[in-house]
Amino acid sequence: MTQAARPTAAILIIGNEILSGRTQDINLSYLAKRLTELGVRTAEARVIPDDEGEIIDAIDHCRKRFTYVFTTGGIGPTHDDITSATVAKAFGVPLERNADAVARLTAMFEKRNLEATEARLKMADVPEGAALIENAISAAPGFRMENVHVLAGIPSIMQAMFETVAETLVGGSVMLSRTVTAYVGEGIVAKPLGELQDKYPALEIGSYPFFRKDRYGTSLVLRGDDPAVLETVVGELVTIVDALGGEPEVDAEDND
Amino acid sequence: MTQAARPTAAILIIGNEILSGRTQDINLSYLAKRLTELGVRTAEARVIPDDEGEIIDAIDHCRKRFTYVFTTGGIGPTHDDITSATVAKAFGVPLERNADAVARLTAMFEKRNLEATEARLKMADVPEGAALIENAISAAPGFRMENVHVLAGIPSIMQAMFETVAETLVGGSVMLSRTVTAYVGEGIVAKPLGELQDKYPALEIGSYPFFRKDRYGTSLVLRGDDPAVLETVVGELVTIVDALGGEPEVDAEDND
Repeated sequence: MTQAARPTAAILIIGNEILSGRTQDINLSYLAKRLTELGVRTAEARVIPDDEGEIIDAIDHCRKRFTYVFTTGGIGPTHDDITSATVAKAFGVPLERNADAVARLTAMFEKRNLEATEARLKMADVPEGAALIENAISAAPGFRMENVHVLAGIPSIMQAMFETVAETLVGGSVMLSRTVTAYVGEGIVAKPLGELQDKYPALEIGSYPFFRKDRYGTSLVLRGDDPAVLETVVGELVTIVDALGGEPEVDAEDND
Repeated sequence: MTQAARPTAAILIIGNEILSGRTQDINLSYLAKRLTELGVRTAEARVIPDDEGEIIDAIDHCRKRFTYVFTTGGIGPTHDDITSATVAKAFGVPLERNADAVARLTAMFEKRNLEATEARLKMADVPEGAALIENAISAAPGFRMENVHVLAGIPSIMQAMFETVAETLVGGSVMLSRTVTAYVGEGIVAKPLGELQDKYPALEIGSYPFFRKDRYGTSLVLRGDDPAVLETVVGELVTIVDALGGEPEVDAEDND
């Protein structure tokens, strides 16, 4: 399967706190890594503010263009949590209080001895026609509208929600990845590496310099969906790096 | 100054390794935080692949719409470093080998006893008319084309480059921030907090739940550019949280 035919995803990280630099986002890398493992290519990611117009624009753009869209953030009980209402507007449907979600929340409130405030019940409001996404941590659900998956911003809850829907996603062939560590500068390996990329255009070859244990080097990452081709190219790359005196080390097989 | 009149920035994080989840980006939060300190509002951020079409689309969209654009990644010596050539295409100018950059790189190569390979000299290629952005760590420069600042992907080098240009940026009034820690759930404080936001629409009030030291609570973040108004609202919020039994704590003044 070519990369173009692979199912695609867009990730929308929603929250002023990310754009102000107050909070370091870790949801993007989690989602991107898991989607890669599932054979879905993350084609684009955006960080956008808690702003109705921006959220609608991003959802409109992404849901038509990509197989899946995932949003994180803005589905809590406070005034700045506008994602659910805004997704309803983006789809042109009313926001409604979901009876299943109310039942789950109410049961959780009783268990934890929490007051069922209107703000807390707001977390049961989803766009008409949405399918709830449960999570194993809190009773407040995310939801799916067509191909748009609306997840929480708190990483542990976001992850639980994603894992609930992961099995419903239709992935492509899984992208395999191998890393060759080379103790040689990028500027030395660049030329033969570029030639190797030209020889194997179906593979994605990335080069990332590092400095560790007092040594400079380059991590050379090969990604592709054909294990036999991947092994062939790893072998050729090891020979190249070895000839440059770069002491090549091949990482154990992984899927990242 | 209203938020609309504040200078704006877009941040474009360029790199397949971020979208595959292999690498956790930390450049966005650094840039966002520093821009906030300088009175520039980050309006949007995107993570895009090392793909010519995607990079050109994002630059075209952002450079007309925002005061400043910052890109990170893709300016190294290997085949997957296509940012410089692509920015030249986006501006419709040729890529040229910059004599100043060559001189700096050559001096560094001699000092470190590195071979002046063609791949390494490629790091001196910038769009015609670009202004170089030096950095204190490596001799390879970033560059500025009009309002687009092209920075490295390696965080330490990216930060050095940003600090080189920071003083050239024209910021707005600096956004001040105060945090009130409340040991009370979001679902309890949500209603009076929403009323407070309605009363002071010029302020940005964010609410972020936390769990630490075995206690649940909510960080209430107030942001605005008028210190007197900010103090007034902090005072009102402390009264609200106190009345809810939330043991309010006001953080020391900060700028995040």
